[in-house]
Amino acid sequence: MTPMNQPSTIAQPLARYAAWRRAGDFIFLSGVIAVDPAAARIVRGYEDIPPEAATLLGRTGEFSTDVKEGPILAQSWYVLDRIRQTVEAAGGQMSDVFKLVQYFRCLDHFPHYSRVRKHFFPGEPPVSTVVEVSAMLPTDDILIEVEATAWVPLR
Amino acid sequence: MTPMNQPSTIAQPLARYAAWRRAGDFIFLSGVIAVDPAAARIVRGYEDIPPEAATLLGRTGEFSTDVKEGPILAQSWYVLDRIRQTVEAAGGQMSDVFKLVQYFRCLDHFPHYSRVRKHFFPGEPPVSTVVEVSAMLPTDDILIEVEATAWVPLR
Amino acid sequence: MTPMNQPSTIAQPLARYAAWRRAGDFIFLSGVIAVDPAAARIVRGYEDIPPEAATLLGRTGEFSTDVKEGPILAQSWYVLDRIRQTVEAAGGQMSDVFKLVQYFRCLDHFPHYSRVRKHFFPGEPPVSTVVEVSAMLPTDDILIEVEATAWVPLR
Amino acid sequence: MTPMNQPSTIAQPLARYAAWRRAGDFIFLSGVIAVDPAAARIVRGYEDIPPEAATLLGRTGEFSTDVKEGPILAQSWYVLDRIRQTVEAAGGQMSDVFKLVQYFRCLDHFPHYSRVRKHFFPGEPPVSTVVEVSAMLPTDDILIEVEATAWVPLR
Amino acid sequence: MTPMNQPSTIAQPLARYAAWRRAGDFIFLSGVIAVDPAAARIVRGYEDIPPEAATLLGRTGEFSTDVKEGPILAQSWYVLDRIRQTVEAAGGQMSDVFKLVQYFRCLDHFPHYSRVRKHFFPGEPPVSTVVEVSAMLPTDDILIEVEATAWVPLR
Amino acid sequence: MTPMNQPSTIAQPLARYAAWRRAGDFIFLSGVIAVDPAAARIVRGYEDIPPEAATLLGRTGEFSTDVKEGPILAQSWYVLDRIRQTVEAAGGQMSDVFKLVQYFRCLDHFPHYSRVRKHFFPGEPPVSTVVEVSAMLPTDDILIEVEATAWVPLR
Repeated sequence: MTPMNQPSTIAQPLARYAAWRRAGDFIFLSGVIAVDPAAARIVRGYEDIPPEAATLLGRTGEFSTDVKEGPILAQSWYVLDRIRQTVEAAGGQMSDVFKLVQYFRCLDHFPHYSRVRKHFFPGEPPVSTVVEVSAMLPTDDILIEVEATAWVPLR
Repeated sequence: MTPMNQPSTIAQPLARYAAWRRAGDFIFLSGVIAVDPAAARIVRGYEDIPPEAATLLGRTGEFSTDVKEGPILAQSWYVLDRIRQTVEAAGGQMSDVFKLVQYFRCLDHFPHYSRVRKHFFPGEPPVSTVVEVSAMLPTDDILIEVEATAWVPLR
Repeated sequence: MTPMNQPSTIAQPLARYAAWRRAGDFIFLSGVIAVDPAAARIVRGYEDIPPEAATLLGRTGEFSTDVKEGPILAQSWYVLDRIRQTVEAAGGQMSDVFKLVQYFRCLDHFPHYSRVRKHFFPGEPPVSTVVEVSAMLPTDDILIEVEATAWVPLR
Repeated sequence: MTPMNQPSTIAQPLARYAAWRRAGDFIFLSGVIAVDPAAARIVRGYEDIPPEAATLLGRTGEFSTDVKEGPILAQSWYVLDRIRQTVEAAGGQMSDVFKLVQYFRCLDHFPHYSRVRKHFFPGEPPVSTVVEVSAMLPTDDILIEVEATAWVPLR
Repeated sequence: MTPMNQPSTIAQPLARYAAWRRAGDFIFLSGVIAVDPAAARIVRGYEDIPPEAATLLGRTGEFSTDVKEGPILAQSWYVLDRIRQTVEAAGGQMSDVFKLVQYFRCLDHFPHYSRVRKHFFPGEPPVSTVVEVSAMLPTDDILIEVEATAWVPLR
Repeated sequence: MTPMNQPSTIAQPLARYAAWRRAGDFIFLSGVIAVDPAAARIVRGYEDIPPEAATLLGRTGEFSTDVKEGPILAQSWYVLDRIRQTVEAAGGQMSDVFKLVQYFRCLDHFPHYSRVRKHFFPGEPPVSTVVEVSAMLPTDDILIEVEATAWVPLR
């Protein structure tokens, strides 16, 4: 194992880029969006994530509420869970993530995202940068993109 | 002291995130905005920073001028000064900061920020990325957010 | 040679910032835009890059097509080529670049940029973050800004 | 066969109009959009055209690129192919088309359309008028409408 | 009678152009809008067309409905009726019209126009192109412009 | 000479299309814009047309006036003059043009264009369609596009 090894195939990228790269003791991840790369399907609401995740996020079962909160909550969960999977594929774990840069389509979504993030970081929180941008790939349905960095020292 | 230690309490964050984190020889900071966390007060002009800072920045005492330039100059000073305090709390100093990512609400503010930044980096300047974004937290009064990274090798 | 040495003069920055900085085994670059710093001239189309680059990018010779595609293709080429020059000036090479953050004025330009990027990274691709922002420096003619990081271990 | 005969049923129009009409030695076609009249389905991307056409147009298999370029490329192909079918139903062939009026939703799409058009007119190109309009029928998903005229002299 | 003769005075144009021109077996008409050239008056509703036409178009006598539907229905009727008069002045009849290019201010008006058009073309319908444009002459009250072509072979 | 012959090279097109095509006794022209194809230069004002044309159009020599009226007057003259050249290259003359379709960026320009058009059609005027569109190729500097058709019977 070299300090600069190849990305795993855990998260198939949308374009030609690596899902993660090791550089020294660091694992750098690409910005993650809520697109299921196998199905080329965008996560648009509770119905696109596992039922137990939807329950954890507070799905009410009331249409008017779920249709409003579902998209950002489901995308937040999906993105952070995929970051977790990617870091694990790279030999680390979620608590090794020490930095997040978070891009929103609309910062009114921040409180929803913030609540979801706490489930993924019960211990020491990462450093964080948050801005609102005009758009992300691939379409306007994308509400959030998160870029994570982890510290996973080689033995 | 470990290579990956706990954030200090110097800058109490608005949400649940760390003000800084050490990873190896690096200190990573969260994006900093001009909000006084103790008072939960946004820096809106010269009156929200120390008088000697306002003088340094060129406060004219003429209302029409100060009301235009004051907000971006005061926020620029506040943000960079808080970065300085945070790096020092992490065991380094401002000259250890080698990278800045700067988000603006309006790039017409850049020349003002640029002048302030020179006061904080009289020596070798950091690498720099500058973009204009739609919005930042917590409100539209925020004109700038700066994310800094420092190199502070452990003995 | 120290682990934290001075930026070369290869790419003369527009404001007071470094084109690159070494920190440990890493080379951090400033965000790069398509401005020729010597001539203070913005790259606006095929005519502002070498003819062989224009040919490589697919210049058709038809005015209506070239005037539409030329700006983003030429800026993409110029930015990535300047990143290559800067990394080489820092003692590395393009294949050492393992991370890119890419800011676009309009994400419809992404497919064009993506094709150009493949020419510069024929081997292992870097991790990648892509967002659309409102504006970049110095003017609205700038369609893309790319921030690169490379891993170039010291002997 | 009269100089002014009835439209065939090849392309079932959306409203009450003819797909084509002969007048003397000329065949006039209605403006064609990318709607499959049998299925009343709008062509939205590569998945709505035959796989070999998608390959010809340069489908990359990368989601972010294909989702951006697919709609205009697939609509361009569909519209021109349906013009070909209609002219053939009227007793002519694509090379008899000597005039095109092309309406775009966004002229940034022109280079993509232009490349597709070359596949359909390998020989002498038609005269051409190109403008950008506010909208076309039936919905905002329609990116292009093309009106063709052919010269097919009666024996 | 020559193959290329002079326009009649049936429809006095607003600027210096011909209402119609013969070229070979074809009669080409200028784009027609709903302006009464004698009175230099724009058709704005049912009150500007003959009562029996208003009845045919479905005038309800209810203000809220007629004020909404009246403008487009009355303009559609007026424009198509003037095309009929012009073609007759040129020696043909409405059924000789084989091609229409139709420009709308707002395509939501299309269903209304489409219903009116059926009254004028009970037999074989013409080929048709429909687009929405930003504006037409002389003012923003103009909702539709129709350009017709007829085939009226000389003996 | 056949009824359907090849376009001359008089007006080098911007993309791959013909400047004109004969079909039977008709000459069909592509939409013409004010771009000098040899120099790939857009006509932006009086300085881009011959001085005697500028004088004819009413150049005042007063900057404020000429900078407002110059662009549309110069483009109108250039476009109609190029139509004249193209028709002559096809074996006809300006008086053979019997139909014009005119696309404007802004219909406030119409009176200026209309005055210029009278110089080119001192005799029988052509039929005419006028609409305002969102944009034309190649850039937003283009204020007008004119599509002409001529009747030039073969011996």
